[in-house]
Amino acid sequence: MKKAKKKVKAAILIIGNEVLSGRTQDLNVSFISNWLNINCGISVIEVRIIPDIEKKIIYNVLDLSKKFDYIFTTGGIGPTHDDITSLSVSKAFKVKYEFNAEAYLILEKYYGKNNFNEGRKKMAKMPKGSSLIYNPSSAAPGFKIKNVLCLPGVPLILKSMMGNLKNFLIKGPVVISSSVNLQTVESYISLELEKLQNKYLKKVEIGSYPFFRLGKVGVSIVSRSSNKTQLKSCRKELNKIIKNKKIKIFKNS
Amino acid sequence: MKKAKKKVKAAILIIGNEVLSGRTQDLNVSFISNWLNINCGISVIEVRIIPDIEKKIIYNVLDLSKKFDYIFTTGGIGPTHDDITSLSVSKAFKVKYEFNAEAYLILEKYYGKNNFNEGRKKMAKMPKGSSLIYNPSSAAPGFKIKNVLCLPGVPLILKSMMGNLKNFLIKGPVVISSSVNLQTVESYISLELEKLQNKYLKKVEIGSYPFFRLGKVGVSIVSRSSNKTQLKSCRKELNKIIKNKKIKIFKNS
Repeated sequence: MKKAKKKVKAAILIIGNEVLSGRTQDLNVSFISNWLNINCGISVIEVRIIPDIEKKIIYNVLDLSKKFDYIFTTGGIGPTHDDITSLSVSKAFKVKYEFNAEAYLILEKYYGKNNFNEGRKKMAKMPKGSSLIYNPSSAAPGFKIKNVLCLPGVPLILKSMMGNLKNFLIKGPVVISSSVNLQTVESYISLELEKLQNKYLKKVEIGSYPFFRLGKVGVSIVSRSSNKTQLKSCRKELNKIIKNKKIKIFKNS
Repeated sequence: MKKAKKKVKAAILIIGNEVLSGRTQDLNVSFISNWLNINCGISVIEVRIIPDIEKKIIYNVLDLSKKFDYIFTTGGIGPTHDDITSLSVSKAFKVKYEFNAEAYLILEKYYGKNNFNEGRKKMAKMPKGSSLIYNPSSAAPGFKIKNVLCLPGVPLILKSMMGNLKNFLIKGPVVISSSVNLQTVESYISLELEKLQNKYLKKVEIGSYPFFRLGKVGVSIVSRSSNKTQLKSCRKELNKIIKNKKIKIFKNS
């Protein structure tokens, strides 16, 4: 993978009425985001979930593709009438929506000539000039055009394809994180945390997240940085605060 | 609740680095969306997940508040330095960010005068002119200003507050849905589904969602409409297709 010196920023565009209606719980955002950070040092900066409506897909693909280094879309590349991502992305970039010869052959081989019906053929249609993202689980490939990478919505299939993305991406600095789960409430340490954050401004990002565990309240303090030394020094100061304020730490955390 | 004759459309704006980084799995989108549809006939049309950055919050609050009847924000209304939703929404609407007298009293009573520190006081600050959304679990209220309703990010607390939203919302036509889980693949029925969808265009929305269950592949066909009669008639035709194509239905589905 090629390396970038500055931060590489991405957006995820989830396309699907089923996620918006609440029927389907999205699992792709956290998976893609973690995967991109760990494997490629790419940070997800924005996520949008939109319905299967052509003009909304076109608007959001163009808007996000201008603002970010990469966009990852999920959903809408299957064989049914509500799968309109490939057509919409073609329209967004004003290129032909046509059969990709390689995708056609892959699918014809997978289904067999006699069972290669219209719906299945549709999955070989994509924007002209796309590169294929191979699919080891159900054959139908995703595709990349410009800085937009289109993936399926089914988490199991999506996961199996992620490894094939690496060739298309430029690597950024990996963000490392360090967290500690405290037996306290946020408002007990908010002042000290703010001072610490101001000291490490733009070097370490400190987040504070309340939670409930077995009837107890807690706060998870997460420090994130692409600079190991800064992160270590910030954590040292955080540990001092925890000690001074006599805050207990959750075991097994 | 007052009733609207036409569709009432909403957006959800999830504010939080922890969701974008993949550290925290969002659970609020599906909960809010289901709750709004079942209880208020309000449809979520767009979701955005953005970081705790002031200018991004301002941009998205203004952009979504123009495009939709309601926006529901989650996250960033707690006591720590990374909780900047209330301040940012104040700036978006160019109103003062100040103590809300009622919220101040609620929080002072909850924590006790001696323990009402700066971080806790911060949770009583919000845009001038806001109405409170009461919080039965941890006291700190959410607020509504114009068509923007600001809620906390912790799912357990958010859920406990939803009932208090009803007074602020106008009810739309409830969307009902009917689904059937088939032992087949999408591409086996895509042609028939497309024809059916075209027949019921703008009356019933038909979605097709592949899944895996215990090693078997399946397709869930979901029909959604605010018109019961149309939905019933569409389902009847779908059942005929299923029978003609000799597709088995998953038991317990």
